[in-house]
Amino acid sequence: MAAIGTARLLKRLVELNRIGETVEGGVTRLGFSQEEEAAVRLCEQWMRELGLVVRRDSVGNLYGRRPGRREGPAVVTGSHVDSVPNGGKYDGVVGVLCALEAVGLFAARNIVTEYPLEVVVFRCEESSRFGVATLGSRAVAGSLREEDLHRLCDADGVTVAQAMAALGLEPRRLAEARRSPGSVRAFVEIHVEQGTVLERAGCPIGVVTHIAAPTRYQVRVSGEAAHSGATPMNRRKDALAAAAEIVLAVERAAQDEAACGTVGTVGVLTVKPGAMNVIPGDVEMGIDIRSIDGESKKRAVQRILAAMEETALRRGVKITEKLLVDEEPVALSPWVQEQIRWAAERAGHRHMPIVSAAGHDAMHMARIAPTGMVFLPSRDGVSHNPLEYTDIEDVAAGAEVLFWTLWRLAEAQGEAPLEVEPLTA
Amino acid sequence: MAAIGTARLLKRLVELNRIGETVEGGVTRLGFSQEEEAAVRLCEQWMRELGLVVRRDSVGNLYGRRPGRREGPAVVTGSHVDSVPNGGKYDGVVGVLCALEAVGLFAARNIVTEYPLEVVVFRCEESSRFGVATLGSRAVAGSLREEDLHRLCDADGVTVAQAMAALGLEPRRLAEARRSPGSVRAFVEIHVEQGTVLERAGCPIGVVTHIAAPTRYQVRVSGEAAHSGATPMNRRKDALAAAAEIVLAVERAAQDEAACGTVGTVGVLTVKPGAMNVIPGDVEMGIDIRSIDGESKKRAVQRILAAMEETALRRGVKITEKLLVDEEPVALSPWVQEQIRWAAERAGHRHMPIVSAAGHDAMHMARIAPTGMVFLPSRDGVSHNPLEYTDIEDVAAGAEVLFWTLWRLAEAQGEAPLEVEPLTA
Repeated sequence: MAAIGTARLLKRLVELNRIGETVEGGVTRLGFSQEEEAAVRLCEQWMRELGLVVRRDSVGNLYGRRPGRREGPAVVTGSHVDSVPNGGKYDGVVGVLCALEAVGLFAARNIVTEYPLEVVVFRCEESSRFGVATLGSRAVAGSLREEDLHRLCDADGVTVAQAMAALGLEPRRLAEARRSPGSVRAFVEIHVEQGTVLERAGCPIGVVTHIAAPTRYQVRVSGEAAHSGATPMNRRKDALAAAAEIVLAVERAAQDEAACGTVGTVGVLTVKPGAMNVIPGDVEMGIDIRSIDGESKKRAVQRILAAMEETALRRGVKITEKLLVDEEPVALSPWVQEQIRWAAERAGHRHMPIVSAAGHDAMHMARIAPTGMVFLPSRDGVSHNPLEYTDIEDVAAGAEVLFWTLWRLAEAQGEAPLEVEPLTA
Repeated sequence: MAAIGTARLLKRLVELNRIGETVEGGVTRLGFSQEEEAAVRLCEQWMRELGLVVRRDSVGNLYGRRPGRREGPAVVTGSHVDSVPNGGKYDGVVGVLCALEAVGLFAARNIVTEYPLEVVVFRCEESSRFGVATLGSRAVAGSLREEDLHRLCDADGVTVAQAMAALGLEPRRLAEARRSPGSVRAFVEIHVEQGTVLERAGCPIGVVTHIAAPTRYQVRVSGEAAHSGATPMNRRKDALAAAAEIVLAVERAAQDEAACGTVGTVGVLTVKPGAMNVIPGDVEMGIDIRSIDGESKKRAVQRILAAMEETALRRGVKITEKLLVDEEPVALSPWVQEQIRWAAERAGHRHMPIVSAAGHDAMHMARIAPTGMVFLPSRDGVSHNPLEYTDIEDVAAGAEVLFWTLWRLAEAQGEAPLEVEPLTA
């Protein structure tokens, strides 16, 4: 009898991660790249195998719909399949695979729900390529403007619009991707935790209560390139020394707000001209600050901006910052959380409340529908790294919990006993 | 009557700098590249036009010899024609052009010197490509080993030996490039100052007393790449934050030794994986410390190494350093300095003592022969940059001073009145 298939989950995980695999054992499937597109097409094939009604929206988000007893609104579940450069094989992917597995079980057992079920694969969730995350779900929530598609560009100067066009998508039809709040009854996303809270608690299911949203700046420090040997220390305008102070100021500001769960990171920093014997003239850097506490995040940002101003004045360098993203932290739907807890208990898995320090597509879906998230344990909390790992048994547990969550949210009828198949391959 | 030709100097400067010219208005003629080779061939052609006896040594250094009344030893003068990426048009080039102009004047006026005169064009003076500077003059001084040619490589993994072989040079004949101290009576090099001392003093001629030699380290900081949102501040091993402390430690150590003329720079720093939402796992950086005071440089290096160790311990990151270069500062020959001062006075140009904070080929020639250097003003001290500029009248003054310096060092006889031709084209 049909059940949640651990072996099938693993097989799909391996198959999907052949796309964009790196020599270091990670994957590179950047948003709106050919690799992401290939992964989306593979998901489309799986959706068709499940008998789902497949459609692409104007920005390339993929939907697979299993009709309900009534037309709508739909209960939507899914995640993304793009990755950071040389990223892990679980981030995003397990959310999509669990959605396919759970909705597939409704199909396999011919369970008809009151409301339609939809699996979604959002595009370009990671910010690595264009500096802004969750482009696909932003489009769905209506919080992306067409001008953003022309403004945001990758390291090669390719804009989002150009990358989309290269895949046959039409940037000017962006607005068509928007969904009305009335069309989505609820959204649930499964994702790996990317932290160690569940692992340390020995708990397989995290019920996410809040999502910490990022504030991001692109900062440029302009000093003066000069010969490293012939320029006395007191006549230098070293852009890298100034940037080093900013890196440490970001760390300090976040540490001072750590009690509120605030974190701050400089993940990108490039030095020009970048030669051993030339004092750096220009540095570009990216600052990422996150919190589930909006006030704490604001305090950290203010301290960082003040430190940048002080550094610029003292060192005589020019520091300009561009605000890339400034999101408000999101509280997830108590109603959806309640269904997830019920589902975890129904499936016999321990659960605990957890906050998401990372942004997710769910953050935007929360604007148009009651939204919940389920976290699964990440080994050693490793994320955005080839060593990222979540046990396939935990993924299967997630799919079970998702099945029962969808059962409740979409008002299925009857009983659908579950067994987890033994891991066979 | 033959004279120092300002117009000819400018014409040759323009012609040579067509080779490797960049869209930004600079030049890229990396050591042992086809561009450097083309520039060396152009110099060879000019040498032949002056009737010099031309030869290449085993590493590709070019010599043009004007015989003296006796066989040897020779008075050698010259510099280099390679550049940093997108570098300036004067660094190295003016030393070669002044040498050609001064020795050319001996030829044009049929002045025979007691000792032979030689113009030299050294290979690969800049460290940009292989991380180590002055490869050609090192070979001449016997301070380069064949294994170095196989060990040092550029960013594409091409070794010096491979780059040499691509130009038809034979790395295993390295030792043949070595010159015995008995074969060189004196060496004089003209170079742009790459600083603002002469410009600010309004003085056209700097008589270099010491050369500050570099100590260089390649440093790798290994932390842990992790998700920038999901990793609490107290669980991070941020390689960039650790590297930022090192950048500031280098600056501080050099500032504390500034009274001894010590400078310290981090000119190269790369972050991996380098994404907005990933805590940096690895940073590679290049540290360059220079001084004319060997003890002061050692103190600065010790403080930097101690700071790196402290950072590694406190942050739980791994920091490894590789010593790339460790040169001793060089005091130039008082005898040659005396001849340069005499020459500047004979030519009617003001002169002042100056130290070289940058390394030069003269540093290695000083090991095998009495060596001197003449500095010419650099506008705004700009160096290793397309905006590098030295007035052609100052270059002509340098050629005049070099003529009279060679006159004394090579014991010419009679009088050779000089006029600087007006700048015509």
